[in-house]
Amino acid sequence: MQSYRQALLLSSSNCHGFSMLEFAKQEICSVLEKNNVKKLLFIPYAQNDYNKYTAKIKEVIDLWGFEVSGIHTYKNAEKAISDSKAIFIGGGNTFLLLKRLYEHNLVELIRKRVYDGDLLYIGSSAGTNAATKSIHTTNDMPITYPPTFDAIKIVPFNINPHYIEMESETHKGETRDQRISEYLEQECASPVLGLREGSILKVDNNTLLIKGVAGAVLFEKGAKKTEFAVDSDVSFLLKTQ
Amino acid sequence: MQSYRQALLLSSSNCHGFSMLEFAKQEICSVLEKNNVKKLLFIPYAQNDYNKYTAKIKEVIDLWGFEVSGIHTYKNAEKAISDSKAIFIGGGNTFLLLKRLYEHNLVELIRKRVYDGDLLYIGSSAGTNAATKSIHTTNDMPITYPPTFDAIKIVPFNINPHYIEMESETHKGETRDQRISEYLEQECASPVLGLREGSILKVDNNTLLIKGVAGAVLFEKGAKKTEFAVDSDVSFLLKTQ
Repeated sequence: MQSYRQALLLSSSNCHGFSMLEFAKQEICSVLEKNNVKKLLFIPYAQNDYNKYTAKIKEVIDLWGFEVSGIHTYKNAEKAISDSKAIFIGGGNTFLLLKRLYEHNLVELIRKRVYDGDLLYIGSSAGTNAATKSIHTTNDMPITYPPTFDAIKIVPFNINPHYIEMESETHKGETRDQRISEYLEQECASPVLGLREGSILKVDNNTLLIKGVAGAVLFEKGAKKTEFAVDSDVSFLLKTQ
Repeated sequence: MQSYRQALLLSSSNCHGFSMLEFAKQEICSVLEKNNVKKLLFIPYAQNDYNKYTAKIKEVIDLWGFEVSGIHTYKNAEKAISDSKAIFIGGGNTFLLLKRLYEHNLVELIRKRVYDGDLLYIGSSAGTNAATKSIHTTNDMPITYPPTFDAIKIVPFNINPHYIEMESETHKGETRDQRISEYLEQECASPVLGLREGSILKVDNNTLLIKGVAGAVLFEKGAKKTEFAVDSDVSFLLKTQ
């Protein structure tokens, strides 16, 4: 097993022009193989129908040669995490996901096992938000109230998944950039990495790379946003205070 | 002054094709005049630059013959509310707004004065969300953590302001309808009234009317969504448990 922190944070499971997870297949397979992982524990907490959601992911990933099982099929969720070498936290609603992770006492446990190098973390959309400092920059609707917005903190900054510049040309709702800049006005705000659809943030101990088929955009307090193309090294972000 | 609950809940301050608040001018003027209100207390808490935001609103509404002042210019916010006959809570970020309303101890006070018929409530966007049962169906980013998502409860259901069907045709993020249906899957979910841009919900004691230049869409558990055109009576929603 790996001896240091490893994670793949996907902007989303779906990307225009690809079947589900297809854009991330190479990265996912390669990190699982490198670590001799055969079994992947899927965490479907961001959605309500755990069986259906797990089956959908299993249908894709089992074909790649790995065995997916849902955490809800184990009697004890904490033990299931402790016994796993790799997890995949799927997308859906970030508030629901974070609330359930706290209810099952998994936040600290996942953090510790990932930092100890005993657990490989794969997240998508809400599962990516949950891996960051806090869920302050999710796009999701606050359908339920979690005990805190603090998250697993595998990376010390925020991510905005499904990042896109404009949401509509005539609609007067705020643009994504406006929403992110409202966050940056907050006193304790961290930098925000907007992952475009198809983008993957690869955490390999102290190295952070942009992978996948689309780049990322960095938002920082008092600075213009910065574009990072696929294969960019953004390791400096790990030094975020 | 009115002897019963009165409110105007605007989807937003801006509506495509109109200058700021212009689409709501008639409704706002008419309810202020009917109640002999000359002064309007503006609450800019949903944004960070209180002076700038208040000046922007004042520039529009003062020209209509009313005197706008910002709550932040008073020493005591609670006293400012108690001394007012009408408030206008502007848009911005709903989480920021609700957190500040709680910090200033205004939630219960506003609720009581509105239900007693002593205070006319005008809200726009975030200010409309704050008037409902809870902020669970805001579109805003959770940039700060309020002590609860429960809101002022002038109406016993939820509102989704700036309601729009599709946000993009190629982007794989969730649509507004999907987000709202995720909320409706929650156990304690209330009905959600989506106010299209330009729509106004007029609360006149036990009567609820759709006003403005665009209609509304009602989402309920296990039911298809229902369209309500301008001038529809949706008073039945006040009986929501």
